[in-house]
Amino acid sequence: MSKLIALYKQPADPAAFDQAYFKTHMPLIERVPGIRKSVITRFTRTLQGEGYYLMNEMYFDDREALKAGIKSPEMAAAGENLNTFAAGLVTLLFGEEESNA
Amino acid sequence: MSKLIALYKQPADPAAFDQAYFKTHMPLIERVPGIRKSVITRFTRTLQGEGYYLMNEMYFDDREALKAGIKSPEMAAAGENLNTFAAGLVTLLFGEEESNA
Repeated sequence: MSKLIALYKQPADPAAFDQAYFKTHMPLIERVPGIRKSVITRFTRTLQGEGYYLMNEMYFDDREALKAGIKSPEMAAAGENLNTFAAGLVTLLFGEEESNA
Repeated sequence: MSKLIALYKQPADPAAFDQAYFKTHMPLIERVPGIRKSVITRFTRTLQGEGYYLMNEMYFDDREALKAGIKSPEMAAAGENLNTFAAGLVTLLFGEEESNA
């Protein structure tokens, strides 16, 4: 599957970030066409390298669906919302998942 | 579930990295006690922020299992192996996954 991966650096006020993220941002993300699921990871410890606070992996059926989702008005709205509370914190990547179980 | 998340920056020689990663490193990782599965993501595009090449999310039943796995001789062997081809490329984090489907 194709994924949009958002990695967030540590916010100055985690409680305010969580409030904005889960109450205003995620409902907008859930409206983006083609998103099958969102999987949230909370980072609890940095052993080596860059520290991050949160990751969201947003799944799409394939790369075409991902590209269409990114270009949708719903994603533009989610991005505008994100800029109100997470400007400068986010890394945004496309990825292809390969299970190696 | 608890995860060990490894994020790799772009290697100078991706083919050599992949060869070492999948042929020598992953077999060592699979021997670490308590690892339920590894999920590999190949990053295909950076839209914003830090660029990365590859991510491995290694799943454990819970935080205790993750901590025990990290301290195992098998993980020490995997870490030594990693240093032979990925020194300076890896970010290593603990995380807790929350599905938000």
